Amino acid sequence: MSDLPVPPAPTGTLGVRILRISQGAGEAAASRSDDQDRVVVEAPLEFQLHHPSLGTEAASFGATMRTPGEDELLAAGLLYGEGIITRADDIDAIETSTRQPNVVHVRLRAHVEIAVQTPARRFSAGSSCGVCGTTGLDAAIAQAALTRVTSGFRVPLEVLLGLPERMRAAQTKFGDTGGIHAAAAFDDHGGLRGLAEDVGRHNAFDKLVGEHLLDNRLPLSDRVVLLSGRASFELVQKALRAGVSVLASIGAPSSLAVNLAATTGLTLIGFLRETHCNVYTQPSRVG
Amino acid sequence: MSDLPVPPAPTGTLGVRILRISQGAGEAAASRSDDQDRVVVEAPLEFQLHHPSLGTEAASFGATMRTPGEDELLAAGLLYGEGIITRADDIDAIETSTRQPNVVHVRLRAHVEIAVQTPARRFSAGSSCGVCGTTGLDAAIAQAALTRVTSGFRVPLEVLLGLPERMRAAQTKFGDTGGIHAAAAFDDHGGLRGLAEDVGRHNAFDKLVGEHLLDNRLPLSDRVVLLSGRASFELVQKALRAGVSVLASIGAPSSLAVNLAATTGLTLIGFLRETHCNVYTQPSRVG
Repeated sequence: MSDLPVPPAPTGTLGVRILRISQGAGEAAASRSDDQDRVVVEAPLEFQLHHPSLGTEAASFGATMRTPGEDELLAAGLLYGEGIITRADDIDAIETSTRQPNVVHVRLRAHVEIAVQTPARRFSAGSSCGVCGTTGLDAAIAQAALTRVTSGFRVPLEVLLGLPERMRAAQTKFGDTGGIHAAAAFDDHGGLRGLAEDVGRHNAFDKLVGEHLLDNRLPLSDRVVLLSGRASFELVQKALRAGVSVLASIGAPSSLAVNLAATTGLTLIGFLRETHCNVYTQPSRVG
Repeated sequence: MSDLPVPPAPTGTLGVRILRISQGAGEAAASRSDDQDRVVVEAPLEFQLHHPSLGTEAASFGATMRTPGEDELLAAGLLYGEGIITRADDIDAIETSTRQPNVVHVRLRAHVEIAVQTPARRFSAGSSCGVCGTTGLDAAIAQAALTRVTSGFRVPLEVLLGLPERMRAAQTKFGDTGGIHAAAAFDDHGGLRGLAEDVGRHNAFDKLVGEHLLDNRLPLSDRVVLLSGRASFELVQKALRAGVSVLASIGAPSSLAVNLAATTGLTLIGFLRETHCNVYTQPSRVG
């Protein structure tokens, strides 16, 4: 090990290796080519607040997944949005360090009125949501990475490419509003086995899993789960918990989604269209 | 008042009145027509857990914004995803009531091991995030609705319609990844005054606000803020806090976003394209 400082967290985007599959025209076979793609970086950031009344202690303001690079702006904007500060002068300093690239320290001036509280008792949760996460996000990432997806399930390419159209056709609320997320489960013949819609993409997936849970139809190891939006860490995490082996999204995946899928053996597909898709991990399940 | 039961929360979608603006071809004037649109319903849902060890008390499992209609499935899927339950048999009953359409009660069986905890001390926040919200979401909605947007700022239609292309051109990370959110501030000549990108759309907006805060350039009352995604309650809430008077999005707004904009006097624009847009509230600021 050298004495060189730890390099800063990668900002913005990250290169990944993918298998790009395009449907051949007419009777032509599909083409598969190893390729490079770039994904947006997703990493946890914890907010630590300092205030003269706390002495040398810090109080957590939670954590969120974010794209590294403008953490000072994110911290200032979040604290403003949450009503903790109202002007630049409320902040003494915002500090980041390459030693702890996923923590930002905000030093508030003495005149800022803060309320450190002990919330009412709550159930503890294995993972955590955005702003209440504290150290939960790192723990959630580590825990999710222990999963191993070993299912021999395979989905034929021609079935896979047809799924976005099948999901759209089954959505009852999208056509009206143009703005609702969906999550659907399909078998290897393209049969629709479940569909949920919600304003939140996490909710749509939760509803899909909830339906399967209550029907005693978990795990989803013999299903392709298709998401209308993008695949972020939390959605891959939910997929792993539900035993999904093939997770496809219409949109792009994040860096952490790709990392987690690669570590666990989940097949992760992005940019799924009628004629092509990108397979980010475990292409052996696309037959 | 009759004795009729309170009707159930509206499910799925909601009709709203809008002003639809289309750019005329060539020298033709733009057409403006009153029209109807449907938006996806967004409303808070609180999760209350019951367990024999708690007696008649309940413990909050937080709250989230969701589209009403399958709250039992959402509750079951969320608890599964968070590791509280692992199978259908862990649940004794899931109860909803038209009297409290935004609360779902989950009765866990005695064999489920639960950990009711008192988290470490934290700063309290005016509003709240998804899963830690408890009663914070209702309070946040009520508080945000007290804002009044009175700015006389106006943006010419031809400037407005050009903003998506300007934002896209200024994005440095989108072209690479096809999957990153952006928030941008423009003046009434279409000049770019700020841009932030992030894997999370809330983060992108927070970064934009944070930059303006640290530069002492708040409020954003003389700016159009453009969002790459959809406009939900939380984004309208953030816009109101930052003093925005015109909020535009490439995607669709939610019901609560439209309601809050209408109540406060914010101009809310959705489906902004090169040739047309929908104005959901306060069209007087589109000149």
